[in-house]
This record gives sequence, C-alpha cells and structure tokens, in this order.
Amino acid sequence: MAKEKKFVEAITSMEDDFAQWYTDVVKKAGLVGYTSVKGCMVLKPAGYAIWENIQAQLDKRFKETGVENVSMPMFIPESLLQKEKDHVEGFAPEVAWVTHGGLEQLQERLCVRPTSETLFCDFYAKDIQSHRDLPRLYNQWCSVVRWEKTTRPFLRSREFLWQEGHTAHATAQEAQERTIQMLQVYGDFCEEVLAIPVVRGQKTDKEKFAGAEATYTIEALMHDGKALQSGTSHNFGDGFARAFGIQYTNPENKLDYVHQTSWGMSTRIVGAIIMVHGDNSGLVLPPKIAPVQVMVIPIQQAKEGVLDKAQEICGALKQAGLRVKVDDTDKSPGWKFSEQEMRGIPVRIECGPRDIEAGQAVIVRRDNREKTTAPIDQIGEYVEKVLETMQREMLERARKHLEEHTYEAADYETFQKIFQEKSGFVKAMWCGNQECEEKIKEDLQVTSRCIPFAEEHTADTCVCCGRPAKKMVYWGRAY
Amino acid sequence: MAKEKKFVEAITSMEDDFAQWYTDVVKKAGLVGYTSVKGCMVLKPAGYAIWENIQAQLDKRFKETGVENVSMPMFIPESLLQKEKDHVEGFAPEVAWVTHGGLEQLQERLCVRPTSETLFCDFYAKDIQSHRDLPRLYNQWCSVVRWEKTTRPFLRSREFLWQEGHTAHATAQEAQERTIQMLQVYGDFCEEVLAIPVVRGQKTDKEKFAGAEATYTIEALMHDGKALQSGTSHNFGDGFARAFGIQYTNPENKLDYVHQTSWGMSTRIVGAIIMVHGDNSGLVLPPKIAPVQVMVIPIQQAKEGVLDKAQEICGALKQAGLRVKVDDTDKSPGWKFSEQEMRGIPVRIECGPRDIEAGQAVIVRRDNREKTTAPIDQIGEYVEKVLETMQREMLERARKHLEEHTYEAADYETFQKIFQEKSGFVKAMWCGNQECEEKIKEDLQVTSRCIPFAEEHTADTCVCCGRPAKKMVYWGRAY
Repeated sequence: MAKEKKFVEAITSMEDDFAQWYTDVVKKAGLVGYTSVKGCMVLKPAGYAIWENIQAQLDKRFKETGVENVSMPMFIPESLLQKEKDHVEGFAPEVAWVTHGGLEQLQERLCVRPTSETLFCDFYAKDIQSHRDLPRLYNQWCSVVRWEKTTRPFLRSREFLWQEGHTAHATAQEAQERTIQMLQVYGDFCEEVLAIPVVRGQKTDKEKFAGAEATYTIEALMHDGKALQSGTSHNFGDGFARAFGIQYTNPENKLDYVHQTSWGMSTRIVGAIIMVHGDNSGLVLPPKIAPVQVMVIPIQQAKEGVLDKAQEICGALKQAGLRVKVDDTDKSPGWKFSEQEMRGIPVRIECGPRDIEAGQAVIVRRDNREKTTAPIDQIGEYVEKVLETMQREMLERARKHLEEHTYEAADYETFQKIFQEKSGFVKAMWCGNQECEEKIKEDLQVTSRCIPFAEEHTADTCVCCGRPAKKMVYWGRAY
Repeated sequence: MAKEKKFVEAITSMEDDFAQWYTDVVKKAGLVGYTSVKGCMVLKPAGYAIWENIQAQLDKRFKETGVENVSMPMFIPESLLQKEKDHVEGFAPEVAWVTHGGLEQLQERLCVRPTSETLFCDFYAKDIQSHRDLPRLYNQWCSVVRWEKTTRPFLRSREFLWQEGHTAHATAQEAQERTIQMLQVYGDFCEEVLAIPVVRGQKTDKEKFAGAEATYTIEALMHDGKALQSGTSHNFGDGFARAFGIQYTNPENKLDYVHQTSWGMSTRIVGAIIMVHGDNSGLVLPPKIAPVQVMVIPIQQAKEGVLDKAQEICGALKQAGLRVKVDDTDKSPGWKFSEQEMRGIPVRIECGPRDIEAGQAVIVRRDNREKTTAPIDQIGEYVEKVLETMQREMLERARKHLEEHTYEAADYETFQKIFQEKSGFVKAMWCGNQECEEKIKEDLQVTSRCIPFAEEHTADTCVCCGRPAKKMVYWGRAY
C-alpha cells in the first residue's frame, strides 16, 4: 500500500505555490518522466497522447487549407545559418553545435535546428523556378533544440516537439493573407478544441521573430494571471528570399523574389492546457483533446455482474465513438476516483450493484464534479451531451477568467499599481517607441504581449511617457 | 514547354543501370529533394505522404498489441552511451557529437541518438519499480543519426525517420514472445499492405544488433535480386537491465532484472517499395499505401461538360472512401499519363466527350496497364475492385519473383556459380562458424541474411567448409 499512499498525497495547492502545483500536476498526472539528459524531457504515454491528439486535429486543419507535410534535415551547416543576418543574431547564441561525425572532426560545424527557415530557404532556392510552382505550402512535425539555461516541462526545454509551416508566395499580399490565415487557424483551434480563449494580434518590433517583417501571436492567460505566447505566425516579406536567392519566373517571364511566411505551435500549448484548466485535484482535460474521455469505475466490482456491466457500458460508449476505459484494477474506488481526477479524464462513470439494479449509472464531470444519473441503455447519448456541455462551459469559464483579469490603465501610476496588486493583462496605449517597452520591462518585468487585431482607443497618450499614443497594447508578465 | 520536355525524358531503364534507375525514380517521382546538408535528404510531399501512411497503419497495428507512444530526448550523454559495452562498440564509431551548447563548451559530449536503447534504459531504471509496472510497451516515432560515409536516398542516409519500440518484461519468455510478435507485425504489414513478401528469420551472431542476445529480421528481395533488411526485432535478455540496473520487485517481494526487447522499421522500407514494384515508367505504389490512389484525367477538357464529369467521378470515388484527385492542369493528356505513371498512382481514369456520351469511363491499372471500361454511375464499385485485384496481384507477382530468384546450393562450387551468374537468395547449409561467413563475404560479397523460421534441411554439410551443418541459411548480396 506504500505506493497507493504516495499517489493520493495531496499536491501543492495552486493558491499556495502555483509553480510547485504545476510541477506536481505534470509529474503526478504522468505526463513527463525522468531523464538524465539535462534540460530535456521524456513525454510519457499520457503526455504524448495529448500531443498526438493536438497533432492529428491541427494537421487536419492545416491540410484543409492546402498545406502538405515534408521532412527536412535536423542539421544546419553554420554557413547556411549565417545567410540571414537578423536570423543568425537571434538564434546563434542558443544552438547546439555538432563538431564531430564518428571519429572525425567536421570541416564545418552543424547546428541542431532551432527552427528551419534556413533549411527551407536553401531547399526552395532550388525547388522553385516558375510562378507555376507557387504557392509552396509546406509544414513539418519535428523537434527543435534551443540551449536554454533554465527549463520547465512543456514551457521551456532544450528540446521540444512542434510543427513549423514554411510557405512561399508570388506576392506580398498572398504572404500576408497566409500569415493571418494560419494565426486564425491557431486561434480557432485553441478556442474550439482546447477551450482556451486567446487574444490575437501583432507583436511589436521588439518582440518579433528574428528575421521577420511582422510577427503575429495568440496570447493566452494562465490561471495565475501570467500570459503564455501560444502560437506565432511570421511574415518574412522577401527578406529571406533575397538572402537565399529564391526567385521565380513570373508570367511576364521576368525574375521575381518570393514572399515567405512561417508559423509554429509547440508542446508548450500542453503547458497552457494545464495552467488554464487544472485545479487542486490535478489536470482537467477538455473532452475534445483528452486521450481518454471517460473512465468507467465499477463499485464493489467483486460482486457478480458488476464488471460485466462496466464492460457493457464501455462497449456502448466506444460504439458512440468515445475514447473510454474501464478501471478494473484491484485499487479502491476512492483511489480510482482521485487517479482519474489527477489525470484530468473529463468524465467518470460510477456503477455499482444498486445502480445496476436500478438500470442506471452515475456520470461525474471532472471540471465541476456535477453528477447526473443516466439510464444505462441510453448512456451513450447522456455522456455525449455531458462532454459537449463540459467542453463549452470550460471555454466560457476560461473566457470569464480572461475578461475578469484584463484591466485598463490610462496613466503609469494606475498601470504600475495594477501590476503590483493584481495579475493579468493590462490594456494601455503606447507611443510606439521601444524605450517605453524597455522601461516597463525594467520597472515591472512586464512585456508587450500584442497589439490586438480588435484595436481599441482607450486614451490619447502613451501610458509610459505621456507622448501621443499610436497603438493599444496588451501588456503582461509572461512565461 | 521546356519544363514538360524535361519531365517526359525517359528515365534510365532498370536493365541498363539499376542504381541509376533508382535515383531517377526517386527524383522524378518527387519523393526526395535537394539539400546542402551532406548525406541527409529532404522528403518532399509525395515521399513524406508515403511515410505518413506507413506510420498511420503500422501505428494502429502496434497499438492493437498494447503499445503506447512516448517521446525521448534526441541527445545521449557519452557516459550513458558507454554503459553497455557491446552497444557502445557497435555505435560509437558512427555517431554525431554535440560539443557546444550556445557559446559554451559542454562538460560532457552528447551524441545525437543513433538508436535509443540507452535512453529508454535510463528512463526505465527510474520508472519501473514493481511487477505491477510491467510490461512496459513503449514506442517512439522520430529520426536518428548515423554518420554514414556513402549515402543513398531512403537506403542509407545520415539522418532517417523510423520508429523504435522498447519493451520491458518480467520474464525471459515474455520478452522472447514480444520479440517474435513484433517481427510478425512487420512481416504481415509488409505483405498485406506493401505487397512485399518477406523471409522471416533470425540473424546469425555476426549480423545481430550490438548488445542483443538475438536479432530477428524480415528480408525482402529487390527487383535486381539484392536483399534488403526491412525490419528487425531484438531480444536483449537482461543484458541492458544489468548494465543499467533496471530491477523490479516481484510478487515474492524480491528484486529481479527486467527482460527487454527493441524493434524498428525505417524510411528504408520506402526504398523497398520502389525497388520491388517500380518499372521503367517509374514508381508503382500498392493501392493500400498510395497517398493518391486514383487520378482522374479528363480528355479534351476544354469541351463543355468534360471537367464537370471528371469532378463528378472524383466526388463519387471520394464518397467510396478512396484517395482521389483530378488533373485539370493545362498539360496534354499524354503528359498527364506519364506523370501519373511516374508517380506510381495505382489507377487512372480517362474520361472524354465520347466516354461521357456513352456514360462510361476507362480505368487503367498502373502495374500492368490493363484497361477496364466502367459505367460512370457504378464507377466506385469498379475502381474498388480494380484496386483490390491490383493489390493482390502485386503481392503475387513479387512472391513469384522471390521464388524464382531463390536458389539452393549444396556445395561451394554451385554456391559460387549462382552468385557469379545470377542474383537472388541462395539457401544453403551452414556449420555455425563465423569463419565461413567471413570467407563467403570475402569471396563473393555475400552475407547471411537469416536463418528462416521455416527451417529446412537441404544438405548434411556446410556449403563452405564441408563440416557437419547446423542451420539452413538464406544468403544474399544486400543493400
């Protein structure tokens, strides 16, 4: 019983120590495991299955917009990385270098890709010749490496899984449209599938991607009021095309440079799921992304007919297209409940001898513990309905949290006061100068998260310097 | 028209130069693209889509046996790689070493995984405590790196995609059963999905995996009579467990070492598809794995109603669950035919004004160019039937090729003569001594491919040394 005891030990409460709560959940829900490779993580089955579901659903949405998958090498020769000046400055300080292959020293160092713009450009320079070859809408699912000093599971690790889309277009307008289109794909996916509301907007020049003309972002608010950049989409204009010589023959038979975009979402988003929906009993997974949506837990399972009925319910739910399991281990029901809750399985079904006699079972929602009694012969319909409602209400709850933790400030005193006393987004006007962003960062460890697409005019002057304001910005403390 | 001309240029015929034919097909079918990363390849959409289909179908078969997916780091600290003596000797000479992270030199070198036994062992040593934790049936889809000197697309490259399963069991018997089970999964997948017949058997000690007690293999025969090792499954016994200290508490509360297996299949198998089924018009894809199964090619498409009818046919086939496209580009039908053939799309449907008037379309099989005329209103059923027949006949044809190129030799003279004059497998008895394997390799560049499960006794003495024979071995020249 030593092991049982260990598991049901309470996790740190999120009100006491949010960071420790996060670490506890990640471990006890079985998402991540031990590795002696510093700064890297093992995704255990429960963690990887979430990513597999994200991948499947996101990939489908990409393909519906015409995107095709490819696979690029993981190594970038140093000379290739250096071709675009801003890009190399942004990434060179944090890459891992391969210097030896087998027993020999390499003539040129190779870095392990931190992102693959340079590889795609190198490829496109040969692959694209005519306007008939455009657009190229390629994506890859892979891992990338960034040599981070401090790391946390999902949020920041030296290696992480992601997808990176890289497109090439004939015109600047097409590239801009694709940049926005993919950001909207991310935003819709987060809201519709992950039940995570996001603010969609543009990054300031200070915060944009190394080598991009413009970076767009979706920003989510975690339960502790900190922001998490959850997906980005970049418009490169023809900057990379000029550096790499990616030209095509236009219909007038003249050479033009292509216009490019890239966009990515990573396993970081699993961190967002945890920190938006989790509670003091552990993980809470939105039904649409949960690897197991329903756990059937038999009560007094030694009694005749109980396990059979549990299997019958499981079969009926599978029939209805749900992802379901029966916990028929020899643990106590109470232990099974807390395990199901820790793992964030959206719904559990309790079913004991008395329920069976009455021809019913009890459905318990993970998010609010609401109980419904359902006739066993209609269990599929009932559970489907509960899952739908839960998915919708999880989004509504997260949206309410976002709204309640989005403040407004017209002057610097109010702005500072909010960040000293509260936690969340602050909407405030900005003059457009980087000095104000730097001052705000220094004073408060707060960064500009984005200039939202849904722009508002909340004041006439910059919240920091008082000069005429140009843009309304969402500010926040970020992961 | 310069581009059109370039494409329809004939590829090298396989009878003239099989290696050049292979390279031509790989390029012209759009499977692989240019990269300036030496020894690595870009999988273009047509190539990656084949791998995606392999992955989806193989993954399903794995999961049906209880396997779960995980994700491990790509780096292995040098000290970890060195823990199992045979293993490090086998792999150290061909790994890529990371020596710098960011601007700093690492305290310990990391190799980029050539395979992940050591990482899984390091993980299992912490993850497994009790017999209740067993078996562990984990798999990952990833890329691995081996610093090869000479490389060829799919067959041998410095980085390649694969899956690697790693399991841990309580008993030696369970591990042995899992080793064989996974080899059979590979064998069945090759035959049922890829239409590639394989010889299933055990590797000799000389050819087994570094660190394994026993290695099992599926061996396929290419069109040129050379063998391709297409999937392997290893039983490690408790060797790695002892080196890494992976122990569990058994039901009697005593510590035991686990028994382990690993098994892998890689993008190499795409090379097998090409070299088993391809012909002088290009790639021929088995219907079950083809990313596009049917290409509808309108004839005289400028004429009213032709394109509409092509789209209608396409819709009907999609309805039937098939993967189908219409080629409505402004190229000539002849060009479209050769493109569809080069890309190995299993079936094309030709449909012009006269066909439409007669309410019919022409179905052409890629493998033997057999034509069927089908009523348009029953096109789904007809095409499904053609694809089924084609899938079955491709396997039969490949099996016939395998049988016709499998020879028998009882003495060394016959053995040598066959390998001098012909190409294929030779079944011959072996004494069990490595010296004979070495002599055969030196004399003929021939290696032992496997000791087949379906063992035969074709002679009493070793084909090489004449001493009493122990095993019947399939011998061949291998990729």
